[in-house]
Amino acid sequence: MRTEFEFIRNIKEKYGLHRVGDDCAVLPKDARTDLVVTADLLVEDIDFRLAWTTAELLGVKALAVSLSDIAAMGATPRWAMLTVGLPKSIWKTNFLDKFYEGWITLANHHNVELIGGDVSRTTDKIVIDSIVAGEVPKGKAVMRSGAKPGDSIFVTGALGGAAGGLILLESGFRYSNVSKKKKGLIARQLRPTARIEAGKYLMKRSIATAMIDISDGLGADLYHICDASAVGACVDHNAIPFDDNLRALMPAGERSAGRLGGEDFELLFTSPRKKISSPKLPPITRIGEITANVGIVEVVAGNILGTLPRTGYRHF
Amino acid sequence: MRTEFEFIRNIKEKYGLHRVGDDCAVLPKDARTDLVVTADLLVEDIDFRLAWTTAELLGVKALAVSLSDIAAMGATPRWAMLTVGLPKSIWKTNFLDKFYEGWITLANHHNVELIGGDVSRTTDKIVIDSIVAGEVPKGKAVMRSGAKPGDSIFVTGALGGAAGGLILLESGFRYSNVSKKKKGLIARQLRPTARIEAGKYLMKRSIATAMIDISDGLGADLYHICDASAVGACVDHNAIPFDDNLRALMPAGERSAGRLGGEDFELLFTSPRKKISSPKLPPITRIGEITANVGIVEVVAGNILGTLPRTGYRHF
Repeated sequence: MRTEFEFIRNIKEKYGLHRVGDDCAVLPKDARTDLVVTADLLVEDIDFRLAWTTAELLGVKALAVSLSDIAAMGATPRWAMLTVGLPKSIWKTNFLDKFYEGWITLANHHNVELIGGDVSRTTDKIVIDSIVAGEVPKGKAVMRSGAKPGDSIFVTGALGGAAGGLILLESGFRYSNVSKKKKGLIARQLRPTARIEAGKYLMKRSIATAMIDISDGLGADLYHICDASAVGACVDHNAIPFDDNLRALMPAGERSAGRLGGEDFELLFTSPRKKISSPKLPPITRIGEITANVGIVEVVAGNILGTLPRTGYRHF
Repeated sequence: MRTEFEFIRNIKEKYGLHRVGDDCAVLPKDARTDLVVTADLLVEDIDFRLAWTTAELLGVKALAVSLSDIAAMGATPRWAMLTVGLPKSIWKTNFLDKFYEGWITLANHHNVELIGGDVSRTTDKIVIDSIVAGEVPKGKAVMRSGAKPGDSIFVTGALGGAAGGLILLESGFRYSNVSKKKKGLIARQLRPTARIEAGKYLMKRSIATAMIDISDGLGADLYHICDASAVGACVDHNAIPFDDNLRALMPAGERSAGRLGGEDFELLFTSPRKKISSPKLPPITRIGEITANVGIVEVVAGNILGTLPRTGYRHF
């Protein structure tokens, strides 16, 4: 069965949709500015469960996942549309009021203006389409396609926390009744942070040659960069900055790069630089190097461990 | 229970969302142009039924309903995003390919570029979020709020056809096995046309003072104009241009203005002019006049029949 990535690649080619396929589409706005736009669909019992989260946190996450796509372009978020479909049973509760409260709190923090959207009824599940637009200086949006052999590969922050949180939630743990370390992991899953400031910094100083946010998983997202840039990559397994809470709760043997899972919403980017740090940036870790082995992502730990599986979160 | 219109008005006031509430949000683009943007959610078994339509027609309708919002601003559509959620059973079929074929055919006709969106999984129903953006000369977007007492009220084309088609579909008739007149009504329901050229004409010549597309129903949409403009209206029942096929199939007594239903996607607008016609326009019918009776829409037919009910399609 084809994956959604294959389907999108297919219609992109079939209909010549040259703006489709990056974290955001880039459109000319005015003489000095480009507009970047993204949409993310969240579906109840596929992308979230009501028993695991709250309406406010869901509002925060709905916006954060799209802000993360804006961050991955190096852009500044400006406005958003919010489309929500929900069944009558939920409509009768205060769910939507609380959802908007969470959403607006994060939007205000980033000066994002809610300009429209839609509210509609579904037969039984909640669906949310989060549309966010941002601005970036003309021609400066950081695409997935700019990685060059020899570039270093970097990630912001720590990885695996959101996937760890998901495992805990699936195992019956809830935020309200677990230890501090488990709380940390569940919070990474339920209340992600978009790396807006880091993305802008890396764009402004032309540090990043290619960038993506880690939503599908390190492996899947690194393949997205390699595919778009027609390059390969070599990742040093020992350099991967696993989340401290994950290290504490999961044995080293289980923490493989290929099983990192998605939704960390950290930035994965490439740069000719060997080292990047600034008081204005979160921790930035060099995890490997771009190679000329087109379409192949190797993992090494002293010696070669093999190729990173092309897995990651996919709906189909 | 509150309606979705009440909910939207509430969050608009609570959070000071001044761009929310028209057919499209209007945003500055460059020195000469404004951007207008709209989103419309279509949910299986709420807004459409797979047994009544085809994947191609659904693709056409998903775009047309949003194009109609662009038309209601007097704008020219430019780009779109398409978010589709569907269950695995539908993913395995050629539904999505056919849906995009229908969508792209109409998009090409209007030079609308597909720039992105999302494809995701749902547990059982199809959901579609149709996002379309257009452009209009700066300050020229036709809002719902510009109607003045004494303005005439006009509609493009004919009304009631889509609602007639819906009644037929609900009664078990299908496009493939009905008479020509019934086919005409069902086509109005399944394959609506957006009045893009008429909207642009009415904007360019500054003919329309307020405009909306008829998606909820004549009564509901006229109230939207009256509420936004702080005016009232008086509609001449005898002047309403009922769809010819509807006239032929439904007795005059049942064709009341209050039961017209939505989804005709004609333009409803106000103008200081008393008569509007042009070879470049579809038939334009004067159906009444804007009054100073704030919030009251009267219906007359010689003598006063009463006030038009504030009904129309609503999800909640």
